[in-house]
Amino acid sequence: MEEEKRETQNQPAEEEDQIVNPWEVAAKDGGKIDYDKLIDKFGCQRLDQTLIDRVHRLTGRPPHVFLRRGVFFAHRDFNEILDAYEKGKKFYLYTGRGPSSEALHLGHLVPFMFTKYLQDVFRVPLVIQLTDDEKCMWKNLTVEESQRLARENAKDIIACGFDITRTFIFSDFDYVGGAFYKNMVKVAKCVTLNKVQGIFGFSGEDHIGKISFPPVQAVPSFPSSFPHLFSGKDDLRCLIPCAIDQDPYFRMTRDAAPRIGYHKPSLIESTFFPALQGETGKMSASDPNSAIYVTDSAKVIKSKINKYAFSGGQDSVEKHRQLGANLEVDISVKYLNFFLEDDAELEHIKKEYAAGRMLTGEVKGRLGSVLSEIVERHRAARASVTDEVVDAFMAARPLPNMFD
Amino acid sequence: MEEEKRETQNQPAEEEDQIVNPWEVAAKDGGKIDYDKLIDKFGCQRLDQTLIDRVHRLTGRPPHVFLRRGVFFAHRDFNEILDAYEKGKKFYLYTGRGPSSEALHLGHLVPFMFTKYLQDVFRVPLVIQLTDDEKCMWKNLTVEESQRLARENAKDIIACGFDITRTFIFSDFDYVGGAFYKNMVKVAKCVTLNKVQGIFGFSGEDHIGKISFPPVQAVPSFPSSFPHLFSGKDDLRCLIPCAIDQDPYFRMTRDAAPRIGYHKPSLIESTFFPALQGETGKMSASDPNSAIYVTDSAKVIKSKINKYAFSGGQDSVEKHRQLGANLEVDISVKYLNFFLEDDAELEHIKKEYAAGRMLTGEVKGRLGSVLSEIVERHRAARASVTDEVVDAFMAARPLPNMFD
Repeated sequence: MEEEKRETQNQPAEEEDQIVNPWEVAAKDGGKIDYDKLIDKFGCQRLDQTLIDRVHRLTGRPPHVFLRRGVFFAHRDFNEILDAYEKGKKFYLYTGRGPSSEALHLGHLVPFMFTKYLQDVFRVPLVIQLTDDEKCMWKNLTVEESQRLARENAKDIIACGFDITRTFIFSDFDYVGGAFYKNMVKVAKCVTLNKVQGIFGFSGEDHIGKISFPPVQAVPSFPSSFPHLFSGKDDLRCLIPCAIDQDPYFRMTRDAAPRIGYHKPSLIESTFFPALQGETGKMSASDPNSAIYVTDSAKVIKSKINKYAFSGGQDSVEKHRQLGANLEVDISVKYLNFFLEDDAELEHIKKEYAAGRMLTGEVKGRLGSVLSEIVERHRAARASVTDEVVDAFMAARPLPNMFD
Repeated sequence: MEEEKRETQNQPAEEEDQIVNPWEVAAKDGGKIDYDKLIDKFGCQRLDQTLIDRVHRLTGRPPHVFLRRGVFFAHRDFNEILDAYEKGKKFYLYTGRGPSSEALHLGHLVPFMFTKYLQDVFRVPLVIQLTDDEKCMWKNLTVEESQRLARENAKDIIACGFDITRTFIFSDFDYVGGAFYKNMVKVAKCVTLNKVQGIFGFSGEDHIGKISFPPVQAVPSFPSSFPHLFSGKDDLRCLIPCAIDQDPYFRMTRDAAPRIGYHKPSLIESTFFPALQGETGKMSASDPNSAIYVTDSAKVIKSKINKYAFSGGQDSVEKHRQLGANLEVDISVKYLNFFLEDDAELEHIKKEYAAGRMLTGEVKGRLGSVLSEIVERHRAARASVTDEVVDAFMAARPLPNMFD
């Protein structure tokens, strides 16, 4: 049996290297994450222009900004999904969220915005897992609080515009059981304790809830976990859009899949969304000033950007006019790279800013208006998501036209 | 938090000692299990005459043969169940079986026969867990085969005479989910990997299914795992009749219980049913001649007893008449001790046999008729257990008169 490459990442020899796993993202010496090294270490593939062009051609739609600009930069067997799609075979999407906080920040929206795009252009069903059990175990929340957060987060996810006729959202506390639990047992049988300790770095002091959890995140990759959706479609392929810190779960899943008679899921993986203070990893949930939240007002957004967004500009206007901005470290430019859809305008800003003709304040101003518009749109969309809408998305029901 | 005593049992210092855990029972140097030592090591209590008399008094019925003759010989907080019962508070019973084989042997029936007695005399509800997930993981059975065996075993269990108005039988593959899964997560959060490795002896080479399983066997101890039965009765106590090899699961459960706001379950624990070849542990599933199966014909039963039942009699009739039988090692006497209900007849046989006035052949003959009658009665009862009856026992339904 071929093994997924590099499933261990916490070996002592690599101690001084960057750490990327579902619970910790830390660059080497407090610097930037080296994504090339990560691709190498994890054994995934770079998402190159050929694949992006192929998406363009197959969908007849311009590739998403996140594809064009390298936000989704790595993959595992995405080409196989496209091969099958080209032959008329559909697939399904699977993504998820661990509901540990009330309000989402913009970084949390990235995988959902991209997943919505994939759902729209490929016209495929989507399952979204809310791992309330995981958060209950890791964050020491009560079952009830985890479930409450899952429903709150579901509202923000639904506000991203998913198609209710093709989307099933579920929380683990609600949905684990039946065919899903059977698949959990099948996966668990394939994974030794040594292996999960190697992949996730669990120690003897960790509770067994942690050690039991990886199969829970693994099994939505298999269509038989959703008999109300995919009964008799065991051959259906699965594509998982996610941030690359989730890769360890799916390396494990891909190792197990052929041993229990399933396709390996394919992955399409993003970089991390940087903190306002600078690109040294993921944002910190404990510092509300490190991120723009979807609940922030336009005023708060502008103020956070002005106060905290790390600038690549020079200390004085004179020096800036002379030397220009360092785009490599400038957070406003990085955020615009995610969220300013107009390629020409982005290129213009980058050129002018780099040449010193545009000042940090001007770039921050533009970013403020871009983000305020996104957040305002999100807020309006979320306000229309009632409890009944959440119930409808989370009902375990057939989706009869999900491939039409 | 007070810890259950002696939760570790696989320490190197005790290597040469007897081993008793859910998967292995081995006496020291191939001898007999030392049950006194086991009580000491596990930290449970001896079930003494005072308690047996109390059961007699509280139920107004003669104590079961298995109580009178020390088959159920140990307990944890059984007195607390009786204290509560005396004050008019009911409890519920929980027992179970790992469905790894088609046909049950007499040893398998022991906990069920005793549980039926407890249900009858205390008039309390009972949940019976069929751990098809466990057997799927440990025995490398398919999910489907484990489920099939669970249903087959359910028929044998039902044939023991349980009251359908007070009994819920469930298989884990069917029932895990909802409130039950939430309790699994709560328990898992309380138990470190070090702890389960200490209790159960799991190693790094074991798969994580094994490490995930103990909470599955733990949570039927908590009434909230059965909302269709015990909704709003979180304070209900649980009594678990089982063989003492299951004690490790419930030591773990009792450690976790107060930390998650539940009562510790009480236990009433039996010795092991000896193999025909002699009392050196549990019977071997791989040797059909080591046990009497409920599917054996009267002829097979007589033949197995005559051929294999280890005799404490002497080599020749002359010597036997002179020295008498060694009852300590005689399997026929041991089996009669389990299954011959008439105390006077048993005493008579033991006295005559020990004195050499009764020969092994005569004792074996009596045992043959006792066991054939039990097995014949079981076979007739099982024949009347249709698939519809199994469905009825296994339906997750309210039991409105379960305490009447």
